[in-house]
Amino acid sequence: MRMVELIEKKRNGFSLSGDEIRFIINGYVKGTIPDYQVAALAMAIYYKGMDSTETAELTSAIVESGEQIDLSPLGKLTVDKHSSGGVGDKTTLIVAPLVASCDLPVAKMSVRGLGHTGGTIDKLSSIPEIKLEMDQEAFISQVKRVGLAIISQTADLVPADKKLYALRDVTATVDSLPLIASSIMSKKIASGANGIVLDVKYGSGAFMSSQKEAEQLAKIMVAIGRSFDRQTIAVISNMDQPLGHAVGNSLEVLEAIDCLQGNGPADLMELCYELASWMLIVGQKVNSVSEARQILDKSLQSGRAWEKFLEFVSAQGGDVQKLLNKDLILSPLKVDYNSAQEGYVHKIDARTIAKCAMLLGAGRETKESEIDLGAGLYLLRKSGDFVKKGEPLICLYTSQSEKLDLALQLLPEGIIIKDHPPALSPVVSSVVR
Amino acid sequence: MRMVELIEKKRNGFSLSGDEIRFIINGYVKGTIPDYQVAALAMAIYYKGMDSTETAELTSAIVESGEQIDLSPLGKLTVDKHSSGGVGDKTTLIVAPLVASCDLPVAKMSVRGLGHTGGTIDKLSSIPEIKLEMDQEAFISQVKRVGLAIISQTADLVPADKKLYALRDVTATVDSLPLIASSIMSKKIASGANGIVLDVKYGSGAFMSSQKEAEQLAKIMVAIGRSFDRQTIAVISNMDQPLGHAVGNSLEVLEAIDCLQGNGPADLMELCYELASWMLIVGQKVNSVSEARQILDKSLQSGRAWEKFLEFVSAQGGDVQKLLNKDLILSPLKVDYNSAQEGYVHKIDARTIAKCAMLLGAGRETKESEIDLGAGLYLLRKSGDFVKKGEPLICLYTSQSEKLDLALQLLPEGIIIKDHPPALSPVVSSVVR
Repeated sequence: MRMVELIEKKRNGFSLSGDEIRFIINGYVKGTIPDYQVAALAMAIYYKGMDSTETAELTSAIVESGEQIDLSPLGKLTVDKHSSGGVGDKTTLIVAPLVASCDLPVAKMSVRGLGHTGGTIDKLSSIPEIKLEMDQEAFISQVKRVGLAIISQTADLVPADKKLYALRDVTATVDSLPLIASSIMSKKIASGANGIVLDVKYGSGAFMSSQKEAEQLAKIMVAIGRSFDRQTIAVISNMDQPLGHAVGNSLEVLEAIDCLQGNGPADLMELCYELASWMLIVGQKVNSVSEARQILDKSLQSGRAWEKFLEFVSAQGGDVQKLLNKDLILSPLKVDYNSAQEGYVHKIDARTIAKCAMLLGAGRETKESEIDLGAGLYLLRKSGDFVKKGEPLICLYTSQSEKLDLALQLLPEGIIIKDHPPALSPVVSSVVR
Repeated sequence: MRMVELIEKKRNGFSLSGDEIRFIINGYVKGTIPDYQVAALAMAIYYKGMDSTETAELTSAIVESGEQIDLSPLGKLTVDKHSSGGVGDKTTLIVAPLVASCDLPVAKMSVRGLGHTGGTIDKLSSIPEIKLEMDQEAFISQVKRVGLAIISQTADLVPADKKLYALRDVTATVDSLPLIASSIMSKKIASGANGIVLDVKYGSGAFMSSQKEAEQLAKIMVAIGRSFDRQTIAVISNMDQPLGHAVGNSLEVLEAIDCLQGNGPADLMELCYELASWMLIVGQKVNSVSEARQILDKSLQSGRAWEKFLEFVSAQGGDVQKLLNKDLILSPLKVDYNSAQEGYVHKIDARTIAKCAMLLGAGRETKESEIDLGAGLYLLRKSGDFVKKGEPLICLYTSQSEKLDLALQLLPEGIIIKDHPPALSPVVSSVVR
């Protein structure tokens, strides 16, 4: 097999066979196929796509490039959850203990993030003393004991994806649905859970701009899951405004605590209930969303979900007392952004808030950047809320005053206030299964 | 400027500016832009193309990446000629001395070739003792003195093209008209001639398969030439059967001698006259093809063209006596391929002949391959000729008997003989100016 002929085959719109895809991925990881040939292939895939068989074979080749977590010692069904990323998305922190408290084990590997805030691992690391690195044995042992573990993805998982993603990032070949789908799904498959619930977001603060695109991506991922015999469903959710009120690492953990204590904001809780319900369904704990909601509600109201979170934090060495006291470090400079006019909030644009969060220090621009865990924004009002002129709309946290000025300059372009209430759309748009 | 954003711009179908193209080419040559980003860009160009401004800017950036030959010391118009490559194409060996003998200087840089036979430089190197490497000063001095020099392209010409072509070759991005056009034209522009005549071939033995495609490529190249104020015209010619009778390095030099002595085959002479006529026109020696033909015919019939060739060979140290005796080395194994039936030749397929020439040792498969200068094929019959069953059709030359068997096995698939004469089409199809 010659790589140049495989590039030409895809370039001309033909499908690659499983053997051909495996030859490419193995050669790329081993270093016998150079970056420049894979870059040309990725661009051809950008234009010509991949059919469902190719996408499944690609996912399979990526999974086989590294370690695969074997959760069978747990002896029962396990579920995993993945979000395609959004602004203020702390759902994992809420959904994971909520589902685990319903006696369905959650064994979750997450990543540190590039973007406006950190990933789930960064958010969790704002809990003092918590340990997020663990070997496979300790990971499984904790899931057995506690029913929940959230750890940093091991370095040996999907090496082909790491290499491919780094290349796509610098060759303008990120935005390809089959490449996105196989990248996400390879991590989920290699992580070992039997059931997978995906949260695919669209809107100004998401990777996909339209609901249609998000559904297309979801369909591809659900088909991949099925080809691996993993029960997979995808919730399509809107990301035009941030989820909940908090954007930033410590701030989001504090909001997650509110949610687990029964005081969460409506939009965030709605999405958490939806995701948790489908996790219970793919985990064969219940047969319907309505049945799931009853169980989830009970677990939340009784405090079991919150207790499960504390149990998980304690098992991973985190300072539970500080959590109970809501004593997390926030950045020292705290400034309110006040409304310039009176009226109803029509828009607090997710993308603008994301840019501000990045400016304030809540995210990483490059892999080497340091995150300011206490930085971020807290939205005092959301779409549909009424605000008086001069009343605080958003509270900003940072450690650097010059960044604050930049963020304050940027904010107005993301905010629309009118004299009549807006039409509000639900956070969950559809479900793909 | 960030390369990834330029790739994305082209990927989305937008035009790159001159500054952006220069940034890319300069960065690539300097090594600050890696192969993999240029590979992704080349694939995006394959799909999205380049407009005429982009193509001219790309050519310009490639030209500026290296040395540019200054022919102004010659003090008059000079012309250059380029063929897009074909089977049995020895036109440069005939046209260059023919034009030079009409008092129009020809300063030509050629290359060694990859393919079924060598390039012009390989063909010439079958003349004993000839020197084909020369510095710029000696090159210009010879053109001044003799009116003709043909040398190997200097290593410092168009380094960006060398690097780009090597990359395109292994990333399935060769077949892109703007990339082909800028690659060819950058060499012509950097070589310094004021007038450029292109021979763009199509058919089974050419890079372009249809006349339409060849005309498209020609239009792009003529436009590039014009943007550099070089008089440029393109002759579109058919390459379904080899040009003339000889295919192979020594064999083609011998056939060129026949032509220069007035005994050339009709199809080859037709193309040579056409190309030489346009060279005289762009070189402002004549105003029309009919005027040019008269002058060319006189020069050929009087022996002046043949004398010019001998003068050129002598100036470059070649053994003129051996040339006069037609004493060039041919490969020792010589075998006739006889016709399996009686009738009129309808096809001797150029691509099949090219494959056989390669098998017999006349060409290079990789840059490192050694050429057998004496190997090749001599077509005893061509399209339209009558042949009896068992009569020789093609004579094969090689140094390796096992290659001979392979070639003899391959030949029949390229030959069609029928009981009625074929309709013959002219070798020159059209002219693009």
